Amino acid sequence: MKKHNFTAGPCILAPEVFEGAAAAVREFEGMGLSLLEISHRDKKVVAVMEEAQQRVLKTLGLGDDYAVLFLQGGASSQFAMLPFNLLTSSGRAGYLNTGTWATKALEEANKLAPGQALELASSKDRNFSYIPKGFAIPSGLDYVHYTSNNTIYGTQMKAFTKTDSLMVCDMSSDIFSRQMDYSAFDLIYAGAQKNLGPAGATLVVVRKDILGKSGRYIPTMFDYPTHIKGESMYNTPPVFSLYVSLLTLRWMDAQGGLPEMERRANARAAALYGEIDRNPLFVGTAATEDRSPMNACFLLHDEAAHKDTFDALAKEAGLVGLAGHRSVGGYRASMYNALEQSSVDALVEVMREVERRA
Amino acid sequence: MKKHNFTAGPCILAPEVFEGAAAAVREFEGMGLSLLEISHRDKKVVAVMEEAQQRVLKTLGLGDDYAVLFLQGGASSQFAMLPFNLLTSSGRAGYLNTGTWATKALEEANKLAPGQALELASSKDRNFSYIPKGFAIPSGLDYVHYTSNNTIYGTQMKAFTKTDSLMVCDMSSDIFSRQMDYSAFDLIYAGAQKNLGPAGATLVVVRKDILGKSGRYIPTMFDYPTHIKGESMYNTPPVFSLYVSLLTLRWMDAQGGLPEMERRANARAAALYGEIDRNPLFVGTAATEDRSPMNACFLLHDEAAHKDTFDALAKEAGLVGLAGHRSVGGYRASMYNALEQSSVDALVEVMREVERRA
Repeated sequence: MKKHNFTAGPCILAPEVFEGAAAAVREFEGMGLSLLEISHRDKKVVAVMEEAQQRVLKTLGLGDDYAVLFLQGGASSQFAMLPFNLLTSSGRAGYLNTGTWATKALEEANKLAPGQALELASSKDRNFSYIPKGFAIPSGLDYVHYTSNNTIYGTQMKAFTKTDSLMVCDMSSDIFSRQMDYSAFDLIYAGAQKNLGPAGATLVVVRKDILGKSGRYIPTMFDYPTHIKGESMYNTPPVFSLYVSLLTLRWMDAQGGLPEMERRANARAAALYGEIDRNPLFVGTAATEDRSPMNACFLLHDEAAHKDTFDALAKEAGLVGLAGHRSVGGYRASMYNALEQSSVDALVEVMREVERRA
Repeated sequence: MKKHNFTAGPCILAPEVFEGAAAAVREFEGMGLSLLEISHRDKKVVAVMEEAQQRVLKTLGLGDDYAVLFLQGGASSQFAMLPFNLLTSSGRAGYLNTGTWATKALEEANKLAPGQALELASSKDRNFSYIPKGFAIPSGLDYVHYTSNNTIYGTQMKAFTKTDSLMVCDMSSDIFSRQMDYSAFDLIYAGAQKNLGPAGATLVVVRKDILGKSGRYIPTMFDYPTHIKGESMYNTPPVFSLYVSLLTLRWMDAQGGLPEMERRANARAAALYGEIDRNPLFVGTAATEDRSPMNACFLLHDEAAHKDTFDALAKEAGLVGLAGHRSVGGYRASMYNALEQSSVDALVEVMREVERRA
């Protein structure tokens, strides 16, 4: 039976991507060898890296003043790399605290440079169920850090206040899902394991002229210029995760790129949030205006009465990965780029059936 | 035509491993989902991590006083993590400099703590073609760092001087290839992409009671205790690379474990080095007593006369990955655990044919 995969990440990718990845593990481009047993210096692997980098720039509408890196270590490593590379010895950075990951990013900067990373605003008072707005941003910060989408809480930033500081954004859970002026950002990063590829690669897109100015000791592997100079192959890159990311970038372009990804995301979100709002048994947890099209969090008003029915029907329908994060509870439906509308329709049908049986 | 893969890394793994990996990308353990789209918190993925960790300990003959981690960032990240975690503010570490990677490890420690990492001895005077011996090791060092096998130069340490310091070893290119008393080491690390798995994972085996004593600021992702506490899932691990590593560990055990890996390595080495020494057209570049069974480096005495013939015959026979590293030149045959004896025999036959045609 077909599974409808609502997992928060690592998560669903397109079926063609899985097929292409499996085929490459058997044999890569007619070489008589598996993709896994080829040197990363082989010209075919170098071509994979270059094509992936070019597609990222093109998709985001950015030019050669930006470098594209496929690193290891996850967004968690970026939390440290950012202040090492961008926070000067007497400078300050501003962080908008919109959830668990934003908090970790802020804490990691203060671990390196105690007191130099400021919390600009926080939505912790209501369990990160909304995006703070109208907060003041001091001028002269080395950079401002945003988290565009908060996987755990199902919130998404719809607008980003531009200031006189560098603008850094963790887009791990909504990259490549919407059209935006990406040139407003100086550094964008994203763990691959949502809309880009499997776990094991981290995308960094950085404006080259902002680097080399922190004046700090930087561990070699945390130094962006080292990786830029090494064309993202300073050391052995995560070849498989990179290749699957390329397959996803190709798939995305073939589907119609960001305009089509955005259209699909909005259609999925309209269907699910529409049902959450219509169905008297359910309630959404995120502020309506900040709802994420990627992750929809919702609760049953009466778990004792309906949870068993919902869970049984969901299982019967092949819906997987719907458990909410422990810090929110209830349910979370992650609807990344590769999730088909029919999967959302299947979830909506289960919600309606629970209502009919209530 | 079957390829005989002598690539230095990423490199050959067993055919069963490639098959198992491709199958898991299509569908993982009957779940109706690809391995790539499952949460790393899924109990089946947690089980993969736990089995891999247990197999590593068992294979190396180590107990629960050691932790096993599958990290990201390659051995290059370990070069920094080591001094962050083990080098005290006024302490010193000793490095045996046996090649490019050993040099980088030494330099990275001195980048963090200038002057605190000492070069105990070096074989740079003869292009790292031998392993220094009989050098003095000052007492009271925080740790001594060895590189057990030097991929580029084809040398391997056959013995490790034990001192009163902690013993750290980069085993990236010969781990799981020989029987040894691994409990002599306090920390072992290895990029997966030789004998363990594909690029994208780094194995760290560390005695837990040596940690938490450097007194330094440590970036969270560089802190071994953080990863130990998180059971190697503090953040999303490189799931695919981890799984392929587990398949390789299972394959290795099914073949007979380290005793059989060592027997095969010795048989491959005997065949190839025997031919290098017998065939008047070729000469080995590494000191005989330090030759690596994993990487055999050799030159043609007269490249102008025989290189074209060798290269053409090698291509015809399906031999790939034989180009020597640019810093040594000539040829390098990497013979990792999964390389069959028949591949070495095919190479030897080509060398004999070149001689016959000379």
